[in-house]
Amino acid sequence: MNTAYQELTGIWARLHHFQHLQSIAGWDQAAMMPPKGNDARANAMAEMEGLLHRMRTDPKLAELLKRAVAEDIDPYARANLGEIRREWLSANALPQALVEALSLAGARCEHAWRTQRPANDWAGFLENFRPVLKLGREVAHRLSDETGLAPYDALMDQYEPGTTGAEVDRVFGDLQQWLPGLVAQVRERQEREAVIDAVGPFPKVAQRALSLDVMALLGFDFDGGRLDESAHPFSGGVPEDTRLTTRYIESDLMQSLMGTIHETGHARYEQNLPRTWLGQPVARARSMGIHESQSLAFEMQLGRSRPFADLLAPLLSKHFGDQLAFEPDNLHRLMTRVVPGFIRVDADELTYPAHVILRYGIEKQLIAGSIAADDIPALWDEGMQSLLGLDTRGNYRDGCLQDVHWAHGAFGYFPCYTLGAMYAAQWFAAIRRTHPDLDERVARADLAPAFDWLHEHIWSQGSRWSTAELAHRASGEALNPQHFRLHLEARYLG
Amino acid sequence: MNTAYQELTGIWARLHHFQHLQSIAGWDQAAMMPPKGNDARANAMAEMEGLLHRMRTDPKLAELLKRAVAEDIDPYARANLGEIRREWLSANALPQALVEALSLAGARCEHAWRTQRPANDWAGFLENFRPVLKLGREVAHRLSDETGLAPYDALMDQYEPGTTGAEVDRVFGDLQQWLPGLVAQVRERQEREAVIDAVGPFPKVAQRALSLDVMALLGFDFDGGRLDESAHPFSGGVPEDTRLTTRYIESDLMQSLMGTIHETGHARYEQNLPRTWLGQPVARARSMGIHESQSLAFEMQLGRSRPFADLLAPLLSKHFGDQLAFEPDNLHRLMTRVVPGFIRVDADELTYPAHVILRYGIEKQLIAGSIAADDIPALWDEGMQSLLGLDTRGNYRDGCLQDVHWAHGAFGYFPCYTLGAMYAAQWFAAIRRTHPDLDERVARADLAPAFDWLHEHIWSQGSRWSTAELAHRASGEALNPQHFRLHLEARYLG
Repeated sequence: MNTAYQELTGIWARLHHFQHLQSIAGWDQAAMMPPKGNDARANAMAEMEGLLHRMRTDPKLAELLKRAVAEDIDPYARANLGEIRREWLSANALPQALVEALSLAGARCEHAWRTQRPANDWAGFLENFRPVLKLGREVAHRLSDETGLAPYDALMDQYEPGTTGAEVDRVFGDLQQWLPGLVAQVRERQEREAVIDAVGPFPKVAQRALSLDVMALLGFDFDGGRLDESAHPFSGGVPEDTRLTTRYIESDLMQSLMGTIHETGHARYEQNLPRTWLGQPVARARSMGIHESQSLAFEMQLGRSRPFADLLAPLLSKHFGDQLAFEPDNLHRLMTRVVPGFIRVDADELTYPAHVILRYGIEKQLIAGSIAADDIPALWDEGMQSLLGLDTRGNYRDGCLQDVHWAHGAFGYFPCYTLGAMYAAQWFAAIRRTHPDLDERVARADLAPAFDWLHEHIWSQGSRWSTAELAHRASGEALNPQHFRLHLEARYLG
Repeated sequence: MNTAYQELTGIWARLHHFQHLQSIAGWDQAAMMPPKGNDARANAMAEMEGLLHRMRTDPKLAELLKRAVAEDIDPYARANLGEIRREWLSANALPQALVEALSLAGARCEHAWRTQRPANDWAGFLENFRPVLKLGREVAHRLSDETGLAPYDALMDQYEPGTTGAEVDRVFGDLQQWLPGLVAQVRERQEREAVIDAVGPFPKVAQRALSLDVMALLGFDFDGGRLDESAHPFSGGVPEDTRLTTRYIESDLMQSLMGTIHETGHARYEQNLPRTWLGQPVARARSMGIHESQSLAFEMQLGRSRPFADLLAPLLSKHFGDQLAFEPDNLHRLMTRVVPGFIRVDADELTYPAHVILRYGIEKQLIAGSIAADDIPALWDEGMQSLLGLDTRGNYRDGCLQDVHWAHGAFGYFPCYTLGAMYAAQWFAAIRRTHPDLDERVARADLAPAFDWLHEHIWSQGSRWSTAELAHRASGEALNPQHFRLHLEARYLG
């Protein structure tokens, strides 16, 4: 006779198997599938979504959970039970009709957005977005009722469990005080620097070969994953078989190179999650913010560092011949150029947080109901002016219409990007405390200090701890934006 | 309120969606998956097999089928209901314990076979094969009880429904009378012919480019499918998105070229199944034999024909430079060389049926119980001697250990290969009756007469008719081995 906990883990193992098929189908859809396969794939994946939802909302789960909580299980199992419960709560918190209404309104808004954005059609977008926002607020309030969190916090909890708006206010508030000044200082300094651009074209096949070399350098396990192409780079698949994608632009070498380094960070996290518990929620990645802290550890902390330029330079020469631009000092300057711009996804390390702070401030008020959808453009213009000194008035296309998140009803996700950047800086500050010679070792292609630390403190921990406890155990303190500031100052003013 | 028939089609649409995910996962496993993904994939696919099995054995289906049969539905729906019923019968005919026992014994036997074959270890194989055969016989008798067919016929019915051993005896008996004589005659004639071999190596990337060109020439829809590589070429995916694979050997151009043409035949059948009924069994390919008739129509009837050599020659020069071997007459001789050999999968068009007749004769007796597993080698030696004049004594590796089919318990499949070759010849005889100028049109790259006929008579018919009725409607007669004989005589003695 199985215990209730054992029954639950059996159900979650089945979910894991079905999600495997769903995940591979999703990767295939983005990286492999020819256009005419789309309808059949959408139907197949929707059928599976329905099955997964029915499994997670099976009425018998409530009773099993109640019994399991009372059972005598070890702490690891208890952490797993907590994660099972969290997933169950999130699947059962919303009435199916609301989920479907938001999914429908979001799909309609996103579909129209694809043409409205290039047409700079804010008024048209607004018509579809109003119902999305209305439903998004309803979701926030329902989740709030279920969890006891504030409405916006309840949304954010889906992506970064345990982190509240108050916490984000604290760290973003700190950031906001020094970031604009730092950007101005760095820009003035960089204006005096000569930088040599790399000369293309950079053939796709050579870029792919370079990507594979860099992934190998970064410890990616090719027996447990692969690299392919897609329109929007991502890290997908399953922990046992991670599927990275990148995008090659023949005139711009850096896009695929830095994109690959970024996705390799996500992939190594997945490839090194605890294997004994695989299939159970406790063995999954902790959160989106912590996931982003891995991709940014790879891209920002390692990839764009001065010693890493020593490792990249010979690889670039190998694949594209010798160029003046590939000289390590110049290469590092190329990878750390700061140019305030309109587009979040094209932003450099230093100005990126400004884009996130802007969106966070707006979406928080949207959910609170203190502003309406109509108020977005004015707030956007004001924020871009004060944070980055850019005038976006009338330019919706490169302003408040640029992201897809809100269009399909994803509120509460944006903070994860910058929380991830901050955590990454905090992890590397901890690594440097144990390894003051980190830079010299990286320059010698000895990346073990960084990878061993991340493996021990982050990857192998899965979802054993809350994000806050994970940070404490790993670095001895809660999220501390000071590390991010010190990192940026050392890199850009040092 | 839905009718019982509507309820059934709803269930089969769900099966179709889940099978889509299973099919893409299977393709990925063979063509994309890195080695460490294997266990997780096997678990995920086994979970899905279990779900599909539970859906097909749901007790409520019996009642629904009974009610649906009595409902007033149109003939197309009735054909669909017949196919639903056939699938239901096949899923419910066997006790789950028997299915699992055969699956387990087959997996064990196949696994050991992978090392026993290269080691020429017949005695070792026999130990694992005896239980497989015992369970295979039990399956045959259970299926026989359910269907009223003879045991071997009941096995064959899974792959080529409606075709009986008596029918196969009739056509193979005919074949057996004239084939050995024809092989001898052709060999004598070919000994006097000079043939120039193509000179490699043939780089993989150029072979792939050639394959894509040939697929385009053969009308493959690249918006609804793709070509990749795998250890064993196959045509997979779903009708809306067919996934072909081939294998490139740099020293041997013909393997990938003819393999691609063969798989393109399978793929065009799938790509042109009736779209309005897609997702229902009536819209599926008729049978394995009819599927093989399409791949062999492409490979044998078209691909290795003299006029097709006119189309291939410039493509070969385009991708590998000019070679004497690519002169169309020589190319045709290269593609039609007859050399009796030990290995079925390497056999030429003329000697291939001998390999099938041999296996069919043995497996029929194995299932009947008139011979034991121990008797296989002696019968094999005898058959290879009389059919192809080859001595295989003691050479199990290249003899009775060469195929995987029996090892995992697949009895009754082998006839499909040669039934397909015969049907292909019969289709082309019908096409030539309407288009006596077929060869001239093919030589001008006008393949429409062949494709239009196949589309109208085979592809678009799905499983609307039984194989026998399909053949009658398409060609005016039942399977007639005379067409195959005339085709071979015209090609090899003409």
